[in-house]
Amino acid sequence: MTKPALHTVLSPRLLDIYDVTNSVVVIIDVFRATSTIATALYNGAARVIPVDTVEQCIQIGKDTGGITAGERDGKVIEGLDYGNSPAEYPRTFIEGKTLVLTTTNGTRLLHMALNCGASEVVTGSFPNLSAVCDHLVSKGKNVILGCSAWKDRFNLEDALFAGAVIHRIQDHFTIHCDSSLMAADMYGIHKNDMRSFIRRTTHWHRLASYGLEKDLEYCVSPDLANILPIYKNGDLVI
Amino acid sequence: MTKPALHTVLSPRLLDIYDVTNSVVVIIDVFRATSTIATALYNGAARVIPVDTVEQCIQIGKDTGGITAGERDGKVIEGLDYGNSPAEYPRTFIEGKTLVLTTTNGTRLLHMALNCGASEVVTGSFPNLSAVCDHLVSKGKNVILGCSAWKDRFNLEDALFAGAVIHRIQDHFTIHCDSSLMAADMYGIHKNDMRSFIRRTTHWHRLASYGLEKDLEYCVSPDLANILPIYKNGDLVI
Repeated sequence: MTKPALHTVLSPRLLDIYDVTNSVVVIIDVFRATSTIATALYNGAARVIPVDTVEQCIQIGKDTGGITAGERDGKVIEGLDYGNSPAEYPRTFIEGKTLVLTTTNGTRLLHMALNCGASEVVTGSFPNLSAVCDHLVSKGKNVILGCSAWKDRFNLEDALFAGAVIHRIQDHFTIHCDSSLMAADMYGIHKNDMRSFIRRTTHWHRLASYGLEKDLEYCVSPDLANILPIYKNGDLVI
Repeated sequence: MTKPALHTVLSPRLLDIYDVTNSVVVIIDVFRATSTIATALYNGAARVIPVDTVEQCIQIGKDTGGITAGERDGKVIEGLDYGNSPAEYPRTFIEGKTLVLTTTNGTRLLHMALNCGASEVVTGSFPNLSAVCDHLVSKGKNVILGCSAWKDRFNLEDALFAGAVIHRIQDHFTIHCDSSLMAADMYGIHKNDMRSFIRRTTHWHRLASYGLEKDLEYCVSPDLANILPIYKNGDLVI
């Protein structure tokens, strides 16, 4: 029996090269959209609504009574209530609420994947690594690991997460994909020095200046918010 | 004094994200266009004319009396004289002649770089690794290491060459680029097992079926054709 195929997409710009139809697409935006989504839902958020623009975010926030949140270039956007840090969404604050989230890269890739005809879209980051892996193995469908990147530029942290997934599930898939081989290699050499390694990334240098070191360390820690956000009719829910 | 910047571009699709103007762009197509270009010029070819289409290749071959060559999907194109193997161009055959070459990925990226306003375009592969590095250091300008990829998909062999260049010249450049950090890491872990490593690449599986193992091993061997092809008025020359 042929195993399903797994591919890694290193930038939203490259998504349409791959056959996304009939595939489960994992949206990866480690710093920090998909880490925040997992955390908010793990802490009891009713749903997370990912939106592309600030205007949509404000409008949908009004319509749903939800909390509006989002950042551009690492800063809370004027007109929105909160930012894109997992630490902003503890259970005491977010339980039972709707979070309307707009981010620079992750929400954009999610909507691109839907437009390309993905059969299912889920979100992944280290805080929900195991939940993502278990789901992909149990579904047994083709998989696209979609790195959100930074303004279409390849980034290391998303590739490392793709590599972490591949390390765990590669026996269940056919992998003829150099991006996946690279991601697995990169994770292999850095899995034991993640916290020091991420200090080398360009994203670290952009964000750490805002004092977010703890945030970024959380975002590369496995299984601290181990649920699976699945996109259904406009919402990310467990 | 600020050092010039170095960036690595992992696919032609991503080239226009970067500021190519005022930069030296290194076109990398390890399997096998830029390995063949270095070899033909090293063996005395008067020039190599890189062209995008088969029709152009035939026409320019007629106009110049040159040898027409090119492959699609690893096979010699009907209507052209020769293929894209470095082994086809020994000194006894190519010396003093014009080679008109069309390939799937490399020549396309070269013309994209020119259209984006590159100040200089050179070609690189392992057979001319040292010549490329020496040139980039002596110029002291911004550098784009441009991977030709495979039909816009990231490939390992081009990234490994970018990594090999970075390993040698990184002290002379400012590198805030995750693609470059990745390429350098990948080269670092595989530099001593290149010949076994390339057997894992998707490109190997595509080409090795045509019996080209020796070719591919040549293409990852440093400095066997150590000259620098520079693009001037339509020609690649030393």
